[in-house]
Amino acid sequence: MALIGNAVVGQSGGPTAVINSSLAGVIEGGLRRREIRAIYGGVHGVLGMMREDFVDLGRQDPAVIRGLRHTPSAALGSCRHKITQDECGRLIEIFRQYGIRYFFYIGGNDSADTSNKVSKAARAAGYDLRVVAAPKTIDNDLAVTDHSPGYGSVARWLAMSVRDAGLDTEAIGVVDTVKIIEVMGRNAGWITAATALARDREDAAPHLIYLPERPFNEERFLADVKAVYDRLGHVVITVCEGLKDESGAYITASSRAIDTDRFGHRQLGGVGDYLCNLVAAGLGIKSRYDKPGTIQRVSAALASQVDLEEAYQVGVHAVQCAVSGITDKMVIIQRQPGSDYVVEMGTVDLEAVANAEKLVPSEFINEEGNDVTQAFLDYVRPLIGGPLPPYVRLERISAVGGEQ
Amino acid sequence: MALIGNAVVGQSGGPTAVINSSLAGVIEGGLRRREIRAIYGGVHGVLGMMREDFVDLGRQDPAVIRGLRHTPSAALGSCRHKITQDECGRLIEIFRQYGIRYFFYIGGNDSADTSNKVSKAARAAGYDLRVVAAPKTIDNDLAVTDHSPGYGSVARWLAMSVRDAGLDTEAIGVVDTVKIIEVMGRNAGWITAATALARDREDAAPHLIYLPERPFNEERFLADVKAVYDRLGHVVITVCEGLKDESGAYITASSRAIDTDRFGHRQLGGVGDYLCNLVAAGLGIKSRYDKPGTIQRVSAALASQVDLEEAYQVGVHAVQCAVSGITDKMVIIQRQPGSDYVVEMGTVDLEAVANAEKLVPSEFINEEGNDVTQAFLDYVRPLIGGPLPPYVRLERISAVGGEQ
Repeated sequence: MALIGNAVVGQSGGPTAVINSSLAGVIEGGLRRREIRAIYGGVHGVLGMMREDFVDLGRQDPAVIRGLRHTPSAALGSCRHKITQDECGRLIEIFRQYGIRYFFYIGGNDSADTSNKVSKAARAAGYDLRVVAAPKTIDNDLAVTDHSPGYGSVARWLAMSVRDAGLDTEAIGVVDTVKIIEVMGRNAGWITAATALARDREDAAPHLIYLPERPFNEERFLADVKAVYDRLGHVVITVCEGLKDESGAYITASSRAIDTDRFGHRQLGGVGDYLCNLVAAGLGIKSRYDKPGTIQRVSAALASQVDLEEAYQVGVHAVQCAVSGITDKMVIIQRQPGSDYVVEMGTVDLEAVANAEKLVPSEFINEEGNDVTQAFLDYVRPLIGGPLPPYVRLERISAVGGEQ
Repeated sequence: MALIGNAVVGQSGGPTAVINSSLAGVIEGGLRRREIRAIYGGVHGVLGMMREDFVDLGRQDPAVIRGLRHTPSAALGSCRHKITQDECGRLIEIFRQYGIRYFFYIGGNDSADTSNKVSKAARAAGYDLRVVAAPKTIDNDLAVTDHSPGYGSVARWLAMSVRDAGLDTEAIGVVDTVKIIEVMGRNAGWITAATALARDREDAAPHLIYLPERPFNEERFLADVKAVYDRLGHVVITVCEGLKDESGAYITASSRAIDTDRFGHRQLGGVGDYLCNLVAAGLGIKSRYDKPGTIQRVSAALASQVDLEEAYQVGVHAVQCAVSGITDKMVIIQRQPGSDYVVEMGTVDLEAVANAEKLVPSEFINEEGNDVTQAFLDYVRPLIGGPLPPYVRLERISAVGGEQ
């Protein structure tokens, strides 16, 4: 049953290298469908929609829309807003006023929750609205989907950067012995796990990988570091900012009230510094930490081509689904069986992803809890869109003294 | 007067994206000269040379040498070692034993100091040794030379990364309002200053830039942040890790004895975290910091083509100079007058660079001490090897309500 009307699209949660590619997919997909008249963008997600702050996306220069596929961050502006019942009701009124019949929301699980609430409010108001969310999160913690757009690009960025930083430590390890790289991720260690892709040979960095899925134990950590140090003389460690102790408490969460967001998440950070102090005190070894922070999530130059393309297709698919009558769903990426990497787009109930969090499963973490498994590498490798650029190493051909 | 013998080359100090390009220049330059028989690489600089740990660079696969031009970090291994008189004497004995008549050392001012001492020891021992250093430092603090290989690449990396991180804050600034990016640099703010290249339009990040050449004042800083915040609603700040207070003391230097190196330099870091606390306490605004650390200095993927090429030519020129009879010198890059960017290689006495440090001059820093000048932008822009990839922005074409 054809539903004719305008569409609105919003971006929500942390920016990524490819969320604008999904936006381009929604816009270009929507412009092709006669069921969709105008396509509006909500500035800063539902925050802007509630203020009637809309950008007319159908009237942009087509070159701008094409350019979105290679422009990082969130072109419409993003938000983190826990929507209330009242706000949902107000939003439906605004949609009615603007003839909006399609609601597309690109984001993670908090955004799926928002979409779900908007959808329910529309139904309660007897307003015919099609709601389809497009997945987006560098954290890769969305349920059901094989992976989420944004993840492949942060994985590629880290694979390259940790490889480079590992070569750095290998070269200068005689003085800067231990390097800790603090990686994003709250409860799920997917991003940190992906740093294993930095390795191009045995004993390459990262030598140790710690995920929040395993309780962090200081004694085991120090023993791990010492073992690598004794063998190689230098150690590169990647750790998730969300590491937790045996009791489940974050080992370093900000205690500033200002750092707690509207979803109750406390800002994390400081694990790298904390572990440097631990290494200095426990082993007497000099260490330093890198904390690339938001830079890791929005690099367009090092984005994964696979990720960019999938992000676009996710946007196109959201529109196709909605126009064909599907609502209350999030688009998912389904990896097909077989040795070649092939995906198909599908959908899942918003309800199933709205309040779920997909952690790194046990089969992807080694027994010692300080590395990933081959099964994880097989899972993640196709997502970064091809091998890293090749580096050379000098052959250890020794010089012979007493010549000339 | 032709001096026939073997050559040794070493890499020293912090790794960079292009120090291997200089190594390739020394090797390929040396292989072309009949005066130079074998070319040995000292593993971890003078440390390896003193252990007779040499790699025969002339017997490497030529494809490996070519590959060095695109491989970051220091392929021979680096070091930070303050050489003693005794060690210099021992080194000369080893050079005599290996028939080494040419000493090439790629590094910064500490490395020039090492080269200078080795040269003096050779003269004192009556041993004919040609010593030419090749400049290398991301810090760009070497005297006399217009700039140093390594700097253009870290500048490009930061220009791209700060632009991306700035778009990130612009998009999500409704929740993460202030972003502080902590940049490398000890006493010289050259790297931090280069973040100004991130700007592609008015009001683009970074909005404030703080260099160690100006004493840091908390009150002025908070007033600066508040002014930008009141105007734009978000603030992106780049700060040098070596910021100092009015008394000249680093505002955050590690107090761990383990963190002081053999040149007496204390490990810095923590300025970002410190300033976040200051912003929270002083203005009640939420902030976060990124500290890309060593990742910024060794990215091959985002290296400057100009920097890569100049680094190579610096290596070639070091060999040409030494073979033609020049000794006790460091190669310098001389920018030619005129509006086009043209450089010529030259040399300077090691003595003049060994213990000198080139700070950012006053004409490159704005009066308020929170930004750079157009003169600095004119200086730095050619070094990053071309413009950044273009990004698009949506036009603010408003949607009109009441359609359908």
